[in-house]
Amino acid sequence: MRRMEGGVTAPEGFMAIGIAAGIKKDKKDMAMLYSKVPCRAAGTFTTNVVKAAPVKWDQNVVYHQETAQAVVMNSGIANACTGTEGYGYCRETAETAAALLGLRPEQVLTASTGVIGKQLPIEAIKKGVAAMVPMLSDSQAAGTLAAEAIMTTDTVKKEIAVQLELGGKKVTIGGMCKGSGMIHPNMCTMLSFVTTDAAISKELLQKALSADVKDTYNMISVDGDTSTNDTCLVLANGLAGNSEITEENEDFLAFREALNAVNTYLAKQMAADGEGASALFEVKVVGAESKEQAVILSKSIITSSLVKTAICGHDANWGRILCAMGYSGAVFDPEKVDLYFESSAGRLKIIENGVATDYSEEKATEILSQKEVTAIADMKMGEACATAWGCDLTYDYIKINADYRS
Amino acid sequence: MRRMEGGVTAPEGFMAIGIAAGIKKDKKDMAMLYSKVPCRAAGTFTTNVVKAAPVKWDQNVVYHQETAQAVVMNSGIANACTGTEGYGYCRETAETAAALLGLRPEQVLTASTGVIGKQLPIEAIKKGVAAMVPMLSDSQAAGTLAAEAIMTTDTVKKEIAVQLELGGKKVTIGGMCKGSGMIHPNMCTMLSFVTTDAAISKELLQKALSADVKDTYNMISVDGDTSTNDTCLVLANGLAGNSEITEENEDFLAFREALNAVNTYLAKQMAADGEGASALFEVKVVGAESKEQAVILSKSIITSSLVKTAICGHDANWGRILCAMGYSGAVFDPEKVDLYFESSAGRLKIIENGVATDYSEEKATEILSQKEVTAIADMKMGEACATAWGCDLTYDYIKINADYRS
Repeated sequence: MRRMEGGVTAPEGFMAIGIAAGIKKDKKDMAMLYSKVPCRAAGTFTTNVVKAAPVKWDQNVVYHQETAQAVVMNSGIANACTGTEGYGYCRETAETAAALLGLRPEQVLTASTGVIGKQLPIEAIKKGVAAMVPMLSDSQAAGTLAAEAIMTTDTVKKEIAVQLELGGKKVTIGGMCKGSGMIHPNMCTMLSFVTTDAAISKELLQKALSADVKDTYNMISVDGDTSTNDTCLVLANGLAGNSEITEENEDFLAFREALNAVNTYLAKQMAADGEGASALFEVKVVGAESKEQAVILSKSIITSSLVKTAICGHDANWGRILCAMGYSGAVFDPEKVDLYFESSAGRLKIIENGVATDYSEEKATEILSQKEVTAIADMKMGEACATAWGCDLTYDYIKINADYRS
Repeated sequence: MRRMEGGVTAPEGFMAIGIAAGIKKDKKDMAMLYSKVPCRAAGTFTTNVVKAAPVKWDQNVVYHQETAQAVVMNSGIANACTGTEGYGYCRETAETAAALLGLRPEQVLTASTGVIGKQLPIEAIKKGVAAMVPMLSDSQAAGTLAAEAIMTTDTVKKEIAVQLELGGKKVTIGGMCKGSGMIHPNMCTMLSFVTTDAAISKELLQKALSADVKDTYNMISVDGDTSTNDTCLVLANGLAGNSEITEENEDFLAFREALNAVNTYLAKQMAADGEGASALFEVKVVGAESKEQAVILSKSIITSSLVKTAICGHDANWGRILCAMGYSGAVFDPEKVDLYFESSAGRLKIIENGVATDYSEEKATEILSQKEVTAIADMKMGEACATAWGCDLTYDYIKINADYRS
């Protein structure tokens, strides 16, 4: 497997585009993704009881349709808490795209992100769809335009592509996603779109995705808020010509590994670009009794406001980390825990057996002042481990969210 | 029952004091509470697996001793994650006070709040205890000095006293507490001290307290972090002369009501004075299926960073409230929910049956710009309700916590 340039248009047969359709002021706000041939589609969605209209629409497509071939996205309005009117607009969006692309509406997926509770400006959306269809392109630049058009409070576009060989055939996987607030483990808590020209059965595509989100998107948190719109879609069009993956063989494992690389990259990008974030904060829990315990502990640490503000202040306030582990619900002996801080500036053991070592505060501050900071907690209970990704909590998070709608 | 002036020294026979013992720079940092006669003691403590030394010490006193008569408190250092050395300092503190007051060490409770992981400066603590004993006073001012000495990032002292009649005798309850970070439901998540001259059995005192914290301290959150030190202690010395409450009769109910008034006041004060807070945010969930559901929903709303920043921005971004309800874990129909905002500026219905009403944004902003703001969610599922208290999330929260130790 090797990393390559580009994003969702990197795999064979995928086209994309992003435009400014007038939903947001002077910004790109609509995107489209299209495969020249029908795709197997897999998806995972928010666990929030309050589900946005496009989530409900996509669940129907992913769970009940054989194939999908296009995705219409908008940023600016979430189309959540919009009742039957909102669901109707979702259908109209799909119908408009389907008519222009020669598809059935149920082959068109939709995704929205933005303010909750407002209705979509459906005329602008329909005009946007009509404008995008003739602009669709398989160029790398078109994929980038799409990645830019789905951004809300994101500060950087997020895309990646990797290539692997399956049975002598080059298979490519591309992806793009957007964060960056209302991001919290429990399904993707964001919008993520992955394309691949791999030939793989719908069942195994879903299986690969469902397993992978647990270690990737579900291990990130920006603010503990699980969105109403979280959606991760994977479209596989089979154009790579590999012999179709229909069982959990070596090819399946290779595909899973590549999908994991794509999803891990996108998930970490989202955490690093969390609203207002100045640092990516990675937490590794090792030596845990079980994977479940490691997940609970690592998530509790990345979610703690007090830990996040300490990271913002480059302050080795490790007591807050032990505290967050303590209230996580996991059962452990605090007096066995070792804790390390690590970054490009070095590695430091901060706690041994639950109490502070004689570490240098100066060195700790230097380590914590880097753009990517890791905390490693060794529970000394067993062999299980987990990694979670978050970010620091800064003034800018408040600034962004205190008047998001203005 | 009537509200009166004062705090922990209001009930008969209680003395207190607060001083600057040199743990913090130029600030009061030690306090003492003493009853002229032995007290029945009840307590509730943090559920955090990582428990501070004074929590362990107090649990022993409350659970295994017949009486207690004094409390020694310090702010500045939490004495958490300090191992056996820290527990030893806790014992030394109690021993020092006991020797000077003519008590057994096990009659002296201790409480600490501040930085986790540092050892107590035990010589300063012992000097502080020795300095305080001769200064103990039953004056209102002495109670206030104690309330001030336990403050950390609190901006106002928090004390209250109420009086009721039990069988013709005047019974008084006084209380003080401190917040204001690491505050989150799961036991008090703070230090709170309640004194009363009521005569009540140890068993019923604990029963009254344990029941009451569920509706008061456990319903507040500042930042979702459950501290290692949370402690709520009630001392009852019986000097009011009422006939001892030994069963759940009318007197018990009257006492519970008064205790609830004290604890509700202190809990709301803590939420309102949450780190960096500019507004008290109250959430009432009504029409719920069960009390448990109402608690889960109301706590999820006050805990959401996105809801809290919206309150900070006086922004009626109700979608975030519905979103926080949706990911709470409670099962409900979003399309039945009504939501209101209320404050001294009026009351407004914002959502009806899950979608926005045609409300005035201007009026909503006016309502949300007050110092105390209430959101009321009507689930229309049953008769149960719950109230939770939080605060907005502001720039100052970041400021306070990004370099708390510097």
